[in-house]
Amino acid sequence: MRHIHIIGVGTGNPEHLTIQAINAMNAADAVFIPTKGAAKADLAEIRREICERYLTREGVRIVEFEVPKRATKDRSYVQSVDDWHAAIAHIYEGLIGDLPENGGGAFLVWGDPSLYDSTIRIIERVRDAGACPFDYHVVPGITSIQALAASHRIPVNLVGKPVEITTGRRLTETGLTHESTVVMLDGEQAFSKINDPEAEIFWGAYLGTENEVIRSGRLGDIADDILRLRAEERQRHGWIMDIYLLRKGRDFKE
Amino acid sequence: MRHIHIIGVGTGNPEHLTIQAINAMNAADAVFIPTKGAAKADLAEIRREICERYLTREGVRIVEFEVPKRATKDRSYVQSVDDWHAAIAHIYEGLIGDLPENGGGAFLVWGDPSLYDSTIRIIERVRDAGACPFDYHVVPGITSIQALAASHRIPVNLVGKPVEITTGRRLTETGLTHESTVVMLDGEQAFSKINDPEAEIFWGAYLGTENEVIRSGRLGDIADDILRLRAEERQRHGWIMDIYLLRKGRDFKE
Ligand SMILES: C[S@@+](CC[C@H](N)C(=O)[O-])C[C@H]1O[C@@H](n2cnc3c(N)ncnc32)[C@H](O)[C@@H]1O
Ligand SMILES: C[S@@+](CC[C@H](N)C(=O)[O-])C[C@H]1O[C@@H](n2cnc3c(N)ncnc32)[C@H](O)[C@@H]1O
Repeated sequence: MRHIHIIGVGTGNPEHLTIQAINAMNAADAVFIPTKGAAKADLAEIRREICERYLTREGVRIVEFEVPKRATKDRSYVQSVDDWHAAIAHIYEGLIGDLPENGGGAFLVWGDPSLYDSTIRIIERVRDAGACPFDYHVVPGITSIQALAASHRIPVNLVGKPVEITTGRRLTETGLTHESTVVMLDGEQAFSKINDPEAEIFWGAYLGTENEVIRSGRLGDIADDILRLRAEERQRHGWIMDIYLLRKGRDFKE
Repeated sequence: MRHIHIIGVGTGNPEHLTIQAINAMNAADAVFIPTKGAAKADLAEIRREICERYLTREGVRIVEFEVPKRATKDRSYVQSVDDWHAAIAHIYEGLIGDLPENGGGAFLVWGDPSLYDSTIRIIERVRDAGACPFDYHVVPGITSIQALAASHRIPVNLVGKPVEITTGRRLTETGLTHESTVVMLDGEQAFSKINDPEAEIFWGAYLGTENEVIRSGRLGDIADDILRLRAEERQRHGWIMDIYLLRKGRDFKE
């Protein structure tokens, strides 16, 4: 039976790679790298560098593949994601089918495979389709949440308190409901619509890469600076990935 | 000026170590390992093994230190944590003071330093006290959340939906408020008091170690099995660390 390694590779710094991830890459016959688009091009480059640094076993092939775009026309969000996953599953099936019998293939997942990533879902879909039997396992990786917290040198939670991880869209819908709220996948700068005199923001973009930039302060004071900086950086690089923690309250205050 | 590395080392599997963590350990003059108590003894052993495997630079000292117990008598929770941090800060101050001038020291933090861990807070406290000037930085590590998700081969979130990370105590207070809820630091098996026919549980203990055990299923069906298993395992090892995800709903259902 073929074997698939779903490997978290961290968020841009090749040194985020764990020993477990490096061993899993080297156990595969092929490492799959997604390409296409401005962001994808830079992220593909980081994955190539990871392979260059850490693939030490002879004969591991690097196989690049194009990720289709998500079509949104004439369909609901759910339908568009479902169709998109189906299209990617079709490509994965081809990649896995091309592996030697009993061979191994490795998908290098940005950050950690468990956090706002669909590689596991799509691999399950391919397996359920049954065209080509295989087994798989998951290797954890450093997430952008941890990269953010490390660069700001902050805990994500207040002592004994909960944390919410959410998206820009949901934050706009629900507002701040937790003392610590991590916001990812925010295409609409939802923080700029939060009006809370108490809130602090810890923001970061391109975390782990050489273009990393971070800012922190009282949300009301620096939201505009971050909006401006984000627009500039996005313009300069042709793409952006950013994440932030919104925090209210303090440790040891009930 | 002295320099402190606060290094996340993952949750039991020495292969959770990142290249960045290994480099930071080797850049230090001393690596500090906390000892004491049954859990602490096993965790200290894992940290010793990490040093054995990955410390390659000559002359890095391993310095063990005892962590005081948190006194709870006659004080509020907040006061007891605050006093405890003060006591640990005092010990850290001694460890840092003993470093060579311009030397480096490394604290090996379980999991990731940003998640329910107070090393950063205590280091800030030592720095603010000002007895011995130093700088510090943080190296992210694999958390128990990611170890749990990887072993179950599941995403933590539903597509586009939020996740709450909370403690056993808070779960009991608030009940399930999110489709995905990760529960840590649960000394009271709060899951067994959740009565939700829809909820599924993904549970794991000693994740990443050779004693790792995981269970999953409909909460109503397996809560009792987990209670029993948890009690047995705890008895057997003299301590336990467990974590779980409670999930309701499905992907692609609004
Ligand atoms: C599709 S999700 C993937 C998350 C990834 N699996 C992880 O573990 O971080 C993409 C979102 O993650 C965040 N993100 C990922 N990498 C980042 C980075 N290097 N800097 C800032 N944010 C990042 C951003 O919020 C982005 O919109
Ligand atoms: C004080 S917190 C530290 C968390 C750690 N900083 C992390 O990143 O996972 C301790 C809690 O983490 C969880 N935990 C840590 N290591 C674990 C492991 N190996 N297996 C299961 N749960 C673990 C448990 O919920 C435990 O009560």
